[in-house]
Amino acid sequence: MDLQAYMAERGAWVDAELERLLPPAGEAPAALHGAMRHLVFPGGKRFRPLLVMAAAEAVGGRAEDALPMAAAVELVHTYSLVHDDLPCMDDDSERRGRPTVHVVYGEAVAVLAGDALQCLAFEALAGAAGRVSAERVALAVGDLALAVGSRQLVGGQVADLAFDPADTDLARIESVHARKTAALIAVSIAGGARLAGASAAQIAELDLFGQEVGIAFQIADDLLDADEEDLCSLANALGLDAARERAQRLLETAMKRIENLGERAEPLRDLARYAVQRKL
Amino acid sequence: MDLQAYMAERGAWVDAELERLLPPAGEAPAALHGAMRHLVFPGGKRFRPLLVMAAAEAVGGRAEDALPMAAAVELVHTYSLVHDDLPCMDDDSERRGRPTVHVVYGEAVAVLAGDALQCLAFEALAGAAGRVSAERVALAVGDLALAVGSRQLVGGQVADLAFDPADTDLARIESVHARKTAALIAVSIAGGARLAGASAAQIAELDLFGQEVGIAFQIADDLLDADEEDLCSLANALGLDAARERAQRLLETAMKRIENLGERAEPLRDLARYAVQRKL
Repeated sequence: MDLQAYMAERGAWVDAELERLLPPAGEAPAALHGAMRHLVFPGGKRFRPLLVMAAAEAVGGRAEDALPMAAAVELVHTYSLVHDDLPCMDDDSERRGRPTVHVVYGEAVAVLAGDALQCLAFEALAGAAGRVSAERVALAVGDLALAVGSRQLVGGQVADLAFDPADTDLARIESVHARKTAALIAVSIAGGARLAGASAAQIAELDLFGQEVGIAFQIADDLLDADEEDLCSLANALGLDAARERAQRLLETAMKRIENLGERAEPLRDLARYAVQRKL
Repeated sequence: MDLQAYMAERGAWVDAELERLLPPAGEAPAALHGAMRHLVFPGGKRFRPLLVMAAAEAVGGRAEDALPMAAAVELVHTYSLVHDDLPCMDDDSERRGRPTVHVVYGEAVAVLAGDALQCLAFEALAGAAGRVSAERVALAVGDLALAVGSRQLVGGQVADLAFDPADTDLARIESVHARKTAALIAVSIAGGARLAGASAAQIAELDLFGQEVGIAFQIADDLLDADEEDLCSLANALGLDAARERAQRLLETAMKRIENLGERAEPLRDLARYAVQRKL
């Protein structure tokens, strides 16, 4: 399959859905709505929303049915970046070659824009109820809330901020990766499958697939930036070769899990390989 | 009816539900979970959750069915206070006689604790699906997200931060009150009724009731703190007497809306009167 064409087509759907969800930049309070849009347009590679839709197709569903979940995970990802960049957190003044939200709009508006983006994620997901059953929507809201709450994404961010860089324990490092990075990737995949009507067994297996791919993705990301001062990084702790090998092995384990999904899961496999291997 | 006894009994239900939802303070990351609990226990008067349950009863439903919404609005209220208190926002070092979250846990953890509390609100609400229909839950998630997003609560906070204190226009002042304060109160009431099985017409009328009570509540709150430097305050703009009269008139208009709900709406009426009039 032509992954670039798949990504371009589905990525345009995500952009259109995000455009529909976000209030216009000029709508009052204009600073808030401008700040909310700042990191959404232009966005990154829309990797997580693409996984959502590929997972929906992998279980024989329609990518369109998973579009609200696709928008939701991108909004959550964006909110977490806006808050991560704040002076009291990573204090980054630039992201994707542009000034960060708080640099342009001030800290107060950046905090509030992140808050509103998280909220909009749940609004987007609630809007799926016109398209798929309310049962699936209510379960997906619970899935997303668990994945981005204090026991997963936010907890991982706190653990990452406090991580001891002298700690080289694989399990402890991967516990941070699992929460900070893999939980959102796993719920993208499991939630996309959920909205598309997957069985409980399929959802559970895709969730594990997503956790493994997510950790591999974080390891690969740290390899790419291995010269940076990451507190919690397998590349820094175990060296580049061991980290590369670990990421490769996680990816292989993950792929075995979804062998039984056959041909229709090919976009999901290709996306996962692409996300991890292009950085190795 | 004995309002104090009603508040004590229902308030204990809310406390128990919040205790069930929040991870233990000692669970890792302990700083995050401690910070999330800091402003929840002990909390305030649990006014919004009490309105949720009273609204459920006002339409002939069971207060217990609305408990997830009750916890959700208290969690949203708490998250908004934690972020409001941050140095980049109101920079408050004390609330309810105790140091604020960022004073105890630092700014980074305070931002993340607020984020996790918002997320937990949606998790709480999603959990209602075992008790009431998934249709009601999905609609309530949408209601809550709209009420606390950039067009309502968060938008009102930004508008409040930027308000020109020389502006004495009633409509502009009340537009800030409507978003910053009344939207969450209105969705407490409408959402409680929604979970308890109210009709669309009842929900719409209770939403208007909540908007009016919410604005009156904010005016009364500003009267209580009339010596403070509020940028957007009817008491400061029009004087104490005019503000008091306006709050009283909004409360009367609101009460007329729900006359037809009869005796079972008495707790809802009493709570609304209590919240507004004890400050006038």
